Amino acid sequence: MSGYTPGEQPVIQNLIKLNTNENPYPPSPEVQKMFNTCDSSRLRLYPNPTGDMLRDRIADIYGFKRENIILGNGSDDILTMTFRSFTDSERAVAFVDPTYSLYPVLAEIQGSKTIQVALNEDFSLPDDLEQQAEAANLFILTRPNAPTGNSFPLERVKQFCRNFEGIVMIDEAYADFASDNCLGLVNEFPNVMICRTLSKSCSAAGVRLGFAIAHPQTIEGLMKVRDSYNVSMLTQMTADAILADTVYIKSCLEKVRATRDRLCAKLREIGFKVIPSEANFIFASPPDEDGESCAAFLREQAVLVRYFPGKITGKFIRITIGTDAQIDRLITLVTEKYT
Amino acid sequence: MSGYTPGEQPVIQNLIKLNTNENPYPPSPEVQKMFNTCDSSRLRLYPNPTGDMLRDRIADIYGFKRENIILGNGSDDILTMTFRSFTDSERAVAFVDPTYSLYPVLAEIQGSKTIQVALNEDFSLPDDLEQQAEAANLFILTRPNAPTGNSFPLERVKQFCRNFEGIVMIDEAYADFASDNCLGLVNEFPNVMICRTLSKSCSAAGVRLGFAIAHPQTIEGLMKVRDSYNVSMLTQMTADAILADTVYIKSCLEKVRATRDRLCAKLREIGFKVIPSEANFIFASPPDEDGESCAAFLREQAVLVRYFPGKITGKFIRITIGTDAQIDRLITLVTEKYT
Repeated sequence: MSGYTPGEQPVIQNLIKLNTNENPYPPSPEVQKMFNTCDSSRLRLYPNPTGDMLRDRIADIYGFKRENIILGNGSDDILTMTFRSFTDSERAVAFVDPTYSLYPVLAEIQGSKTIQVALNEDFSLPDDLEQQAEAANLFILTRPNAPTGNSFPLERVKQFCRNFEGIVMIDEAYADFASDNCLGLVNEFPNVMICRTLSKSCSAAGVRLGFAIAHPQTIEGLMKVRDSYNVSMLTQMTADAILADTVYIKSCLEKVRATRDRLCAKLREIGFKVIPSEANFIFASPPDEDGESCAAFLREQAVLVRYFPGKITGKFIRITIGTDAQIDRLITLVTEKYT
Repeated sequence: MSGYTPGEQPVIQNLIKLNTNENPYPPSPEVQKMFNTCDSSRLRLYPNPTGDMLRDRIADIYGFKRENIILGNGSDDILTMTFRSFTDSERAVAFVDPTYSLYPVLAEIQGSKTIQVALNEDFSLPDDLEQQAEAANLFILTRPNAPTGNSFPLERVKQFCRNFEGIVMIDEAYADFASDNCLGLVNEFPNVMICRTLSKSCSAAGVRLGFAIAHPQTIEGLMKVRDSYNVSMLTQMTADAILADTVYIKSCLEKVRATRDRLCAKLREIGFKVIPSEANFIFASPPDEDGESCAAFLREQAVLVRYFPGKITGKFIRITIGTDAQIDRLITLVTEKYT
């Protein structure tokens, strides 16, 4: 088997990196303040195993209780725990196609039976989703979806959660960039888990902090397969400093959204087909529908975007929203090429 | 099933914590310098997925190549990857008894068939170890062993590695406190893996950095079940600063060893049976062989040690080596109680 392939992290100077959905803005300045004043001698001690202070912080922010929260070493860790808890060679996992390319890899590592449900041509959910996913014990939905960037109507998701008999894990890695989210479903449906990460919306991909919000019984189950000290003291301290600065986070989110909407409009003007995005990236198909050559062209100009081979996805490129200056450079390049 | 129970991390003031094998000395002062001068804006980026600079540092220190090293989010992560790679309901894992209490928990999570090989009464390896472990695909040996603190003769371990047909994982969490180690076996036997951690010998339990050293093919296999970004940028930066300061690490190790040897001698004087220790803790049985009441008595005096219920282990307490002042306090207390 082959493992998951992360987006490249090249070491070329002056490269514009729009390929791994990182936030172009640094994390809160509170992080550096914390580094300067923290007591590093405490690192000799084990961290709080379950990260309770940070769980309380997250519970406060989102209106839940500590018992509703489990922390992970990035949302990858949350996903791994979820696969280990709810799927195996007999209990299938279902997810849509296309979606986050890590899921099939986790399924293979766990030896999980897998059901892939093709999205409609416009990347919306098929009407018979329930029937197609019926045999699964775990359904994973990325909302907004990756790499397509579109969201799925909240009412449709709610209907699915009501109908589906297994666990529904909604991966909300990009939800902070969207106009709504599924947090409200946790209290309504005991089978719903929400997965979040600080990587994108909080500019903290290097910190590795993910968390799940779910019914206390589900959290308790996940706790049993968790590595005892899965979130380092460094990550707990840093994540806490970041999350405390909600004003800063919001200001970065607003900037990213504004740049995204400007880029969408501009690309459509040039003749790109752009999937409506609720994320910090857009999925766009150039006028000639040749995603591969578009990505290669940009790469030659030192702008990295992500290309996903495939009959449908191959028509597109995925562009992470960078700073305004970075996006201006991209716009200049594609304008020259396609007009 | 019930998860692994970590040693308590209580919040009582003035408590002397000799229960979780943490190093009593802070990590290198280079850590705080690094915090003060690092560029925290880089945390917006994903870390290097495989931590290659840190792998090179570790390879240099121990005389291996990058390809021989895999990093983990603590050695727990290394152990989890090892269990997921080499054991399941058909491929058994074997380990001695008593040993690190996490192994049976990992076996249960993975649904692994388990073989436990009882140590001799003096906690040495039985002569028929090979026969007892024969059916296993993975053998885990903690050397020095926990919670007993003794080591096993290197020649005996070598003989076992030669005879055993599966993977031998030697957990060297405490090897830096010992007079020898098994690193040399990696080049001699392609089936040997060594697991190390910065938690104990480098005063960095809060940092969560473990690593395995093994044949490149074994490392490649583990890489496939690794979470893509399993070691945060924070942990990579901090571990690098710590490992660079070898002089400081050595000075702490020497202090711990000196305190350990002094404590062993003193306890024997009072009538304790003390297992010869090569670790940063000792396993000692009070004159009345009642480990539980000894631990309870110390706890009342605000000194925490670890007690492991069981017919054999219940006669002992495990004492982590603290500072000289902390150990003096413990000596005073047990002298009063037992003489």
